[in-house]
Amino acid sequence: MITGKNFIGTDMSAKSNKTYTTFNPVLNLQTKWTFYEASHEEIEGAVQKASAAFEVYRNFSGQKKADFLNAIADEIELLGDELVTTYVEESGLPEGRARGERGRTMGQLRAFASLLKEGSWVEATIDTAQPNRQPLPKVDLRKMLMPIGPIVVFGSSNFPLAFSTAGGDTASALAAGCPVIVKSHPMHAGTGELVASAVVKAAKSTGMPDGVFSNLNSSDLEVGQLLVMHPKVKGVGFTGSTTGGMALYRLATQRKEPIPVFAEMGSINPVVLLPSALEEKGADWASQYAGSITLGAGQFCTNPGLILGIKGDALDDFASVLREKIEEIEPSSMLHPNIHENYERGKKELSTQPKTEEIATYTKEVAPNFAQQMVLKVAASDFLDNPILHREVFGPFSVIVECGDKAELITVVQHLEGQLTGTVLGSSSELESYSDVVDALVNRVGRIIFNGVPTGVEVCPSMLHGGPFPATSDSRFTSVGTAAIKRWVRPVSFQNWPETLLPDALKDSNPLGIMRLVNGLNSAQKI
Amino acid sequence: MITGKNFIGTDMSAKSNKTYTTFNPVLNLQTKWTFYEASHEEIEGAVQKASAAFEVYRNFSGQKKADFLNAIADEIELLGDELVTTYVEESGLPEGRARGERGRTMGQLRAFASLLKEGSWVEATIDTAQPNRQPLPKVDLRKMLMPIGPIVVFGSSNFPLAFSTAGGDTASALAAGCPVIVKSHPMHAGTGELVASAVVKAAKSTGMPDGVFSNLNSSDLEVGQLLVMHPKVKGVGFTGSTTGGMALYRLATQRKEPIPVFAEMGSINPVVLLPSALEEKGADWASQYAGSITLGAGQFCTNPGLILGIKGDALDDFASVLREKIEEIEPSSMLHPNIHENYERGKKELSTQPKTEEIATYTKEVAPNFAQQMVLKVAASDFLDNPILHREVFGPFSVIVECGDKAELITVVQHLEGQLTGTVLGSSSELESYSDVVDALVNRVGRIIFNGVPTGVEVCPSMLHGGPFPATSDSRFTSVGTAAIKRWVRPVSFQNWPETLLPDALKDSNPLGIMRLVNGLNSAQKI
Repeated sequence: MITGKNFIGTDMSAKSNKTYTTFNPVLNLQTKWTFYEASHEEIEGAVQKASAAFEVYRNFSGQKKADFLNAIADEIELLGDELVTTYVEESGLPEGRARGERGRTMGQLRAFASLLKEGSWVEATIDTAQPNRQPLPKVDLRKMLMPIGPIVVFGSSNFPLAFSTAGGDTASALAAGCPVIVKSHPMHAGTGELVASAVVKAAKSTGMPDGVFSNLNSSDLEVGQLLVMHPKVKGVGFTGSTTGGMALYRLATQRKEPIPVFAEMGSINPVVLLPSALEEKGADWASQYAGSITLGAGQFCTNPGLILGIKGDALDDFASVLREKIEEIEPSSMLHPNIHENYERGKKELSTQPKTEEIATYTKEVAPNFAQQMVLKVAASDFLDNPILHREVFGPFSVIVECGDKAELITVVQHLEGQLTGTVLGSSSELESYSDVVDALVNRVGRIIFNGVPTGVEVCPSMLHGGPFPATSDSRFTSVGTAAIKRWVRPVSFQNWPETLLPDALKDSNPLGIMRLVNGLNSAQKI
Repeated sequence: MITGKNFIGTDMSAKSNKTYTTFNPVLNLQTKWTFYEASHEEIEGAVQKASAAFEVYRNFSGQKKADFLNAIADEIELLGDELVTTYVEESGLPEGRARGERGRTMGQLRAFASLLKEGSWVEATIDTAQPNRQPLPKVDLRKMLMPIGPIVVFGSSNFPLAFSTAGGDTASALAAGCPVIVKSHPMHAGTGELVASAVVKAAKSTGMPDGVFSNLNSSDLEVGQLLVMHPKVKGVGFTGSTTGGMALYRLATQRKEPIPVFAEMGSINPVVLLPSALEEKGADWASQYAGSITLGAGQFCTNPGLILGIKGDALDDFASVLREKIEEIEPSSMLHPNIHENYERGKKELSTQPKTEEIATYTKEVAPNFAQQMVLKVAASDFLDNPILHREVFGPFSVIVECGDKAELITVVQHLEGQLTGTVLGSSSELESYSDVVDALVNRVGRIIFNGVPTGVEVCPSMLHGGPFPATSDSRFTSVGTAAIKRWVRPVSFQNWPETLLPDALKDSNPLGIMRLVNGLNSAQKI
């Protein structure tokens, strides 16, 4: 049952007079729930509890943290249909997506649990003593990763489950040994509360310290700002707009003690159409991209917002099939009237820029909050001259950039900002002849894709969901996949530490049986 | 021969009218050399060359970069006695230290060369495709670390070789595949120029692109600021004061595109004396710490500036032996009159704080720029009340904090800021009974030492030279040891990329024979 209250650790609390509701964008109506904005006292309570919990939680074994993560996944499943219907009501997304995202969320939690049970993620590195080394003896040094402290996670608008309350940021921080305070996303506060109740239940049943997890409601900026500025908060995870992410980054780096902010922000995910792709498979790709551009009303960070090709009949044919296919697709609801409004504003701004041409647009009337897709075309020289055309329009929108020749194609790629993904469509042999285009693209993206679509982010160790600024605030880390745990840890070296008091990961006997780097060699053996 | 010119890539250049000299602190005299401050044009030239060089250098094989690093080490050795005498003249440090630090510097370069030749440092991670997976097929994903771009390295004052021109920051960035622009430290610009000439010679002989390395002279703040603000610079390495490091950090994070700054700043390196250490080995430790506090005139980041113990006869005995031993030690020259002046100012400020007691002080007259050591004592409650006493005094200076009991000892540790190191002296069994003190200390330091001194930073994979803020600006990385390479790279994922065009590290055939994580398992085999 949704109460609208905050979770301050295990306590449910509603001390503020300020309330808000969520919204059903398909019905274009408010939901029946009322949420209580977190008060200053509640924020302080959550942080103090998290800080106290850290003193205990950070020393828990991998097995114990894994039990907690698995229990969260189980409790989310036990929420059953109430979670699915709440998700659908608050997001306007279809039930299939809700069930799929729920599965992904549980899968992520369980993947981190497996990582903890296996244990090698701590990067244990051991250099044993050489007491007789000349000219100086060598000490015994052993290093491993340890958690940094309480983390604030901002729920995203576009993934009410997988990038929100118990999504990848929360799962990775809890796995690392860091308590988490979630700033719930106001568009799906009910979904958030249900998931938070599952986390709290799991924390109780697996013996976690009170404060290992809190969930704070918030409909404006202050709660998040106070959290990021709190001296006891040690890191921030965020998925959302560039404006929001950079505001948090600036706040965090201007603190007396700066803290890391992992903000996954905007990306237009350039797609390069090489000649063979256009000539041999142009119609197929146009059809696939009509689907990719409109998937989930285009509300994906990896939505292909920029398509680059060399001018000619083949590119014209591609554009005309794309038009035909994309105009056939029935629009769907966006997540919220605000997101729809931003989409309409962005679409209008870009489509009214001089020298742009509308290639495709859905003109039939639609219900409120439903997104009418659009594709523009612009010449490369005009694209290069106009920074507005480089902006992300969050929704089912894309721009085809027509390059005069290969040299202009390279120039366009070289002028792109950092991106989550880059895609090349063509043949293997073309990749070689276009190696300068490919090389420039690799240098600007987190993930480079050959002959595919950028939407669809696999959760696995090799995934890099991130990329150079402004795609993220820190290109060195990923927010998807088990490597996301590395954002919440720092290495600590133990020098000449007594064997019996070393963390298990660093003991001679290797009781965890993990892979370690011992005197320069990888080994899962004891020393 | 020292010319005083800048290296803009391979070009020697002196376009500015602004010049400065270096200083021999032992003779208290200027040296004979004149250095030309880098001009705006020279700064721009160095960055443009570095940016162009990156396009080539980032794709070089590990073997090729290793040849370059080894050649730098060889060329430094070939500088022979001129390097040693210049170092001694510009730093006031003894010849033995010069030779030792030169050896360490060459050792670091060769260690990175070995790391590159072995090759596994790129963290190759491969998840092969599962075309028949339900409900969706799984793509092929392969991830590895790649360099981020041109790096600016600020030479440190206290390590003219090992943390300067071709020191750990430069070696690690070049190893990663990033061109380096050094902002030479003005106190040892001659030493810097000699080393720079060795790097440039090595770059030429091993076929590196022009601009892979530049060395800019600078006697004030502007050159460094312009470099950090330049849009084509992608990262910064710095070792020095908190003021200097934080100024660069703030600049870099306020850029339109923020970039990472790895600033290793201040630390007072707390040492906890547990009862058994005082009772059984107090005199021995006092003698060892007299040496550690005064080593190199106390001009080490890891100098033990804070000694914590529980009040009693044993602590008094420790203090009196420390007094006796430390007062016997002959003062030595500091690096520069400015550093000596700062030392005297800091010493005066702390020693005139109310309720502090001078335990030891060297009172005999000394030559100009020679540092007279000092040890203070203060009660824990007064230490806790006075933030001035938590400050680092860079030089042969330490403060003994007398705690009333174990509870007060814990409180003091809990109130310490982040530190490079923490040390515990005692017995193994005491570590257990003082586990809360130890645990609080581990949570505040980069390296924790049992029964030793913090000075002496081993260069090896298990070293962590870093620590929570304000010891460094980013606790997640080390500036010493081969793991320092991780500061200058970001992961990139390749999705469904053709085997023949993958980087060698990610090919099925594993031509480099490196250790990889393949479908979740560590393996050096081909797939």
